[in-house]
Amino acid sequence: MLSALDLARRIEAGELTPRAVVDMCAEAIAAREKEVHAFVVLDLVAARRAAENPKLPSTPLRGLSVGFKDIFDTADFPTQYGSPIYAGFQPRADAAAVALTRRAGGIVIGKTVTTEFATMVPAVTRNPHNLAHTPGGSSSGSCAAIAAGMLPIAFGSQTAGSVIRPAAFCGIAGFKPSYRLIPTAGVKDVAWHLDTAGVFGAGVADVAFITAAVTGRDLRVDRAPPAPPRIALVRSHLWPQASPAMQNALESAARGAVAAGAKVVDVTLPPIFEEAYAAQIVIQEYETLLARTFEYDRHRDQLGKQLREALDAATAITADAYDAARRTAKRARQVLADTMADHDVILTPSAPGAAPHGLGSTGNPMFNRLWTLMGTPCVNVPGLYEGDLPLGIQIVGRFGRDRAALEAALFVERAIARK
Amino acid sequence: MLSALDLARRIEAGELTPRAVVDMCAEAIAAREKEVHAFVVLDLVAARRAAENPKLPSTPLRGLSVGFKDIFDTADFPTQYGSPIYAGFQPRADAAAVALTRRAGGIVIGKTVTTEFATMVPAVTRNPHNLAHTPGGSSSGSCAAIAAGMLPIAFGSQTAGSVIRPAAFCGIAGFKPSYRLIPTAGVKDVAWHLDTAGVFGAGVADVAFITAAVTGRDLRVDRAPPAPPRIALVRSHLWPQASPAMQNALESAARGAVAAGAKVVDVTLPPIFEEAYAAQIVIQEYETLLARTFEYDRHRDQLGKQLREALDAATAITADAYDAARRTAKRARQVLADTMADHDVILTPSAPGAAPHGLGSTGNPMFNRLWTLMGTPCVNVPGLYEGDLPLGIQIVGRFGRDRAALEAALFVERAIARK
Repeated sequence: MLSALDLARRIEAGELTPRAVVDMCAEAIAAREKEVHAFVVLDLVAARRAAENPKLPSTPLRGLSVGFKDIFDTADFPTQYGSPIYAGFQPRADAAAVALTRRAGGIVIGKTVTTEFATMVPAVTRNPHNLAHTPGGSSSGSCAAIAAGMLPIAFGSQTAGSVIRPAAFCGIAGFKPSYRLIPTAGVKDVAWHLDTAGVFGAGVADVAFITAAVTGRDLRVDRAPPAPPRIALVRSHLWPQASPAMQNALESAARGAVAAGAKVVDVTLPPIFEEAYAAQIVIQEYETLLARTFEYDRHRDQLGKQLREALDAATAITADAYDAARRTAKRARQVLADTMADHDVILTPSAPGAAPHGLGSTGNPMFNRLWTLMGTPCVNVPGLYEGDLPLGIQIVGRFGRDRAALEAALFVERAIARK
Repeated sequence: MLSALDLARRIEAGELTPRAVVDMCAEAIAAREKEVHAFVVLDLVAARRAAENPKLPSTPLRGLSVGFKDIFDTADFPTQYGSPIYAGFQPRADAAAVALTRRAGGIVIGKTVTTEFATMVPAVTRNPHNLAHTPGGSSSGSCAAIAAGMLPIAFGSQTAGSVIRPAAFCGIAGFKPSYRLIPTAGVKDVAWHLDTAGVFGAGVADVAFITAAVTGRDLRVDRAPPAPPRIALVRSHLWPQASPAMQNALESAARGAVAAGAKVVDVTLPPIFEEAYAAQIVIQEYETLLARTFEYDRHRDQLGKQLREALDAATAITADAYDAARRTAKRARQVLADTMADHDVILTPSAPGAAPHGLGSTGNPMFNRLWTLMGTPCVNVPGLYEGDLPLGIQIVGRFGRDRAALEAALFVERAIARK
């Protein structure tokens, strides 16, 4: 994989040109894209031109190639939201995150495959580790492109589990920051109280570096060794649904963290979090139906059957049920602050197991829903495997303490690597 | 003015056709639009065709003409956000609120004038009560169109005071529901933690009816007399900046409410709300700069001087200052719930006074900023005047209790009319 941080250092040191980075991506794309299908649209000619433009800013992402999930509007690429309803649609503007990336020196080389409107409906992308498996979704193309070494930086979004789950399945670092830390202006709405923009890279230090560059926040974790975190090991009520390999991976990561100096304590979440889990589903389905009103009323026949049926089912959710779910979420956020009082982060699975076989499903976001609703920073820590398929474990931080979450994730990533 | 509720009843009773409603609007537009400048784009031919379409649904807004502020995307009208950067831009889809309005039977006859990206920069619209005065902003065209009898229904949005203030200046009912009660999917972002879609109509019962129709929520208040509310009279730390006429109007409205049976108690807000007031400004300016990254970086010369300078100034706001402002907002929301424990609603000015003279400013949103930040429902109650210019007073409800806010506003509206 291409480390954004490593490439940035080499560009800054004059060892590498932006043009050479585009060429490295182009080479991997030539080798893998035909079977992986990570991109909806790609413009390597424009990318090479941008890389050789003397006006390319000397900002942190200078000359690094970037891909955006195709629900981020782009002024120079069509943006189709994974739906034939938007075939060929050309926005007038860049989404805020795209514009911030360009300001930081990033070169957007293409748009990556999203599932239909970033929902659960699978698309064409395959898992680079094993083409017979899903890469996860909905940020399928972004994660597969990083895993296949076709990009050092990609962006996605999470409404249920669309950043952390595909990052886990693809064996890369994925970072879903605190809710709206990265602006979602110009990103197609799915469910607005949940939609969170996120970042993918080769390792934890990379996603921290990328997020720092785009937000201007002090989030880099590569400049000093991470301090040993106080970790709450949370198996949650979903633990029986985690595969034996995932259960082993999580427990072995916890042991590794302890061996490296972290404090790890088993924590059982209070019952409110099971309610909050159910509330996330209600909020997501209710808001998704509203956000898709235009498409549902005017282009019903161009919606995929699975999405159409999900929207049909969502019409049964009442405003009262939605309001109650929002109140549950609010209460759970308050309880979470208390639960986390003595811990820096939570360690929990990123997904029930490795990427499922087949392309008929993007896998289950069960281990992600609660944290998206809580708005807390989440990091997928790569480095563990079951056979040829990656297993992702997840660090969940406290709302607004994104740096602490990234530091703890880096600590665990290194602890795993050391074993 | 055209009452949406009255027109809907007459259409339902067969006394009026949808076509006749379009014609009423067209007549007022022919008489007033040349001097008021409420519309950016208008299509009465298409509106008449839609009105005569036998497939027009028999839903609550059947055949009622509607205008949308030109920051709501529309699939059949260009959407230009009050900026030359988007000249002629044609979205592919309707914003969710537009699609919901069409589903409810509303006929979108045009897009109404917004200030530049819904900020403070004035546009061309004039106040129908006195053309030498501002209609307020940023929902300038929507409010002026209602006040001039050119539309029974219009939509706007509020980030600081852009629903309640122009409604006050134009002497119409304006309703800013609880944060995101009306979806903002497909509405151009200004500052995402504040942006709230709102509704305009002739009277309080009209805006309740329209919001009920669009959201499917039980918000109508026209079917039974409103119960006498428990009102907290809040002058706030801004009281010295309210004009003598506004001070008199508010106190006379309070006396009227008492005479009609309401309980009115003077309430002084705790000091945290002055901090929250300042926090709103920080949040708005920080997020507005981020939301406009593309335009600021790529089309700087096409931004108005006033907006460009405001964005330049906002670059000085640090992420820490923004995060601190968000924490203040959270604390203030918790305190507000306690402050409101014994009151149904707050009564407070909608604006410092009547619409200022001249078109160089849209007036001051000082009496709106706090409530937008709190996410609470706000209603501008019309019916009071200073000379030929309206004076608006504001009912502020508790978050999520939109119906109670509307009922109390109707109660006060009737109490004023009775005097």
